[in-house]
Amino acid sequence: MKKQNVRTLSLIVCTFTYLLIGAAVFDALESKTENQRKVVLQEIQAIVRRKYNISDEDFRIMETVVLKSEPHRAGQQWKFTGAFYYATTVLTTIGYGHSTPSTIAGKLFTMCYAMIGIPLGLVMFQSIGERVNRLSSVIIRSVKSSLHCRQTAASELDLICVVTTLSSLTIAGGAAAFSRYEGWSYFDSVYYCFITLTTIGFGDMVALQKDNALSKKPEYVMFALIFILFGLAIVAASLNLLVLRFVTMNTEDERRDEAQAMQALAGAVRLEGDVITANGSILSGQMGHHCTETTSLDADDTSVCSCHCGCFTSNSRHRFTVRRSPTQIRHLLPVLPMHELHLPQGPILPPPAIYPNHRASI
Amino acid sequence: MKKQNVRTLSLIVCTFTYLLIGAAVFDALESKTENQRKVVLQEIQAIVRRKYNISDEDFRIMETVVLKSEPHRAGQQWKFTGAFYYATTVLTTIGYGHSTPSTIAGKLFTMCYAMIGIPLGLVMFQSIGERVNRLSSVIIRSVKSSLHCRQTAASELDLICVVTTLSSLTIAGGAAAFSRYEGWSYFDSVYYCFITLTTIGFGDMVALQKDNALSKKPEYVMFALIFILFGLAIVAASLNLLVLRFVTMNTEDERRDEAQAMQALAGAVRLEGDVITANGSILSGQMGHHCTETTSLDADDTSVCSCHCGCFTSNSRHRFTVRRSPTQIRHLLPVLPMHELHLPQGPILPPPAIYPNHRASI
Repeated sequence: MKKQNVRTLSLIVCTFTYLLIGAAVFDALESKTENQRKVVLQEIQAIVRRKYNISDEDFRIMETVVLKSEPHRAGQQWKFTGAFYYATTVLTTIGYGHSTPSTIAGKLFTMCYAMIGIPLGLVMFQSIGERVNRLSSVIIRSVKSSLHCRQTAASELDLICVVTTLSSLTIAGGAAAFSRYEGWSYFDSVYYCFITLTTIGFGDMVALQKDNALSKKPEYVMFALIFILFGLAIVAASLNLLVLRFVTMNTEDERRDEAQAMQALAGAVRLEGDVITANGSILSGQMGHHCTETTSLDADDTSVCSCHCGCFTSNSRHRFTVRRSPTQIRHLLPVLPMHELHLPQGPILPPPAIYPNHRASI
Repeated sequence: MKKQNVRTLSLIVCTFTYLLIGAAVFDALESKTENQRKVVLQEIQAIVRRKYNISDEDFRIMETVVLKSEPHRAGQQWKFTGAFYYATTVLTTIGYGHSTPSTIAGKLFTMCYAMIGIPLGLVMFQSIGERVNRLSSVIIRSVKSSLHCRQTAASELDLICVVTTLSSLTIAGGAAAFSRYEGWSYFDSVYYCFITLTTIGFGDMVALQKDNALSKKPEYVMFALIFILFGLAIVAASLNLLVLRFVTMNTEDERRDEAQAMQALAGAVRLEGDVITANGSILSGQMGHHCTETTSLDADDTSVCSCHCGCFTSNSRHRFTVRRSPTQIRHLLPVLPMHELHLPQGPILPPPAIYPNHRASI
């Protein structure tokens, strides 16, 4: 099986296995807590409902209102600042979902906007990431030169270290800021930064949703957006360094296979007609061209071949093509006089090998 | 400025402009509706609160309970099936957020799981996407051959058409199924499929959350997961075809620049010492080597240069290096006899140009 197909199938099997393992671990980690929380929440809900004697119908209305009011509680989501924040979550595919379009026109425009914006964002972040890696390698080289190292060129390990350090600093620094501004624990802030910069964007924790920050804290809004864009560029740098080569592997293998196939064709020698192999046997070739031939087994006649065939083709794919007709090569080899033949009596048989053995070379 | 830097800066400017335009449009589309909805929801909330005379404190408790109970209402999110669904949203970076880890261990494992799973998923989907494109080109070629087309090779436009058709069919087909199973309008289902397959994953609409589907409808669960994985492979095929070449542009330009620089160095001719240019002027070169020289301005003496310099270097970077010392080349040119010179009286001046004009060629 082709290498690319083996690779693809292996990746599918690996990923599926990885999902199964993940499912089992998440089940073990969260299932029990889920049940406990469900019980507690149901109890509290029951207490409140009993206290006020709220009917089922009214409680369902209350639930719907509370759920749909959630984005409104966080502030004005669709004014210019909030809309810019939303556009960023679409273009970067983070997609928190803290605010989502409720009109048909909004949903339609979201789809069109994403169709152009996502490739644009992908290319931009990868472009920045590549420049970051390039700058890092230049800096590493000058640092190594000034330290008089033997090898001044930046190795891949150096770049991986730099980009890992940058990513860690970005997450650590961002987490500290969000922890302060949002009132989250440091661990939760790290979790938020990670989920954001990997573009998973659950939306369980979203910045700029407290104290009407979108309208009232422009410098914090700026910081959050810059954090997202800068952080994504660093993530893109690490992807550019570590993952991109694997992403293009199949395509490069295909190109190499095609190039090899072209080379092989270009180098092929194509012979039509009888071929004398190295051990002296004769291989009949194809009838390439119409040809008239007169041969004679008379002692003193020599065969005459008159052919109307083209000898060399102009096909650029064949470096060397020989076409020789007629397909038989008897006229090339010495013919023994008939009177020296001792043909057996009987029905006419195909002519015996009357050619003396000789070693032919191609 | 280097081409790669210009490209990167242009992309940043383009993307930022695109975000600004998006923000303005979303503001225009959604802002008014947001205000109207907010007013309506607040009115309904006020009615219900007044009816039951619910205190602020109790209402806040009720809100919290309702919000946190939302995933529980949808079914068991962390049993194996739900956990597999969650793992899929992490690995693919869709990240609906319909269920999110509540334990520290769950959050920590999510981060570690994503760190390995996301690159694995990226490579896998791109691998499948490349194979899909390859298969498409093979099928197109055989179709064109059977239709006796002049050009049988699959052009890029053909592939783009095929992958666009496949994407549209996937979204249209998936939307029909989700519309039926989830009770959404067809447009909402198309919107859901689009948001899912672009990995934005808002979470405003999530499949498998009605009627305890995760536990009770295994075939529908299978369909939803296969839809996500197959659809993402088709999206990856279109990215592989349309976007990947732009993502690798900077890296390829860097490689080309480096290759050109190496070529230029290899082809450089390095001359030390005086150089006679094409217009006959003499350029003083560097003192390459220590050398003794005897020259004489006497009429009949010819200068003798004895130098201890190496003529050709073994530096593989220079194809051709000439070192000739002494740096002066007076000895190479004919010297006019002193008595024919008419030197002005006075302080010793640097010797005038005593070499008759001649055209030297290098």
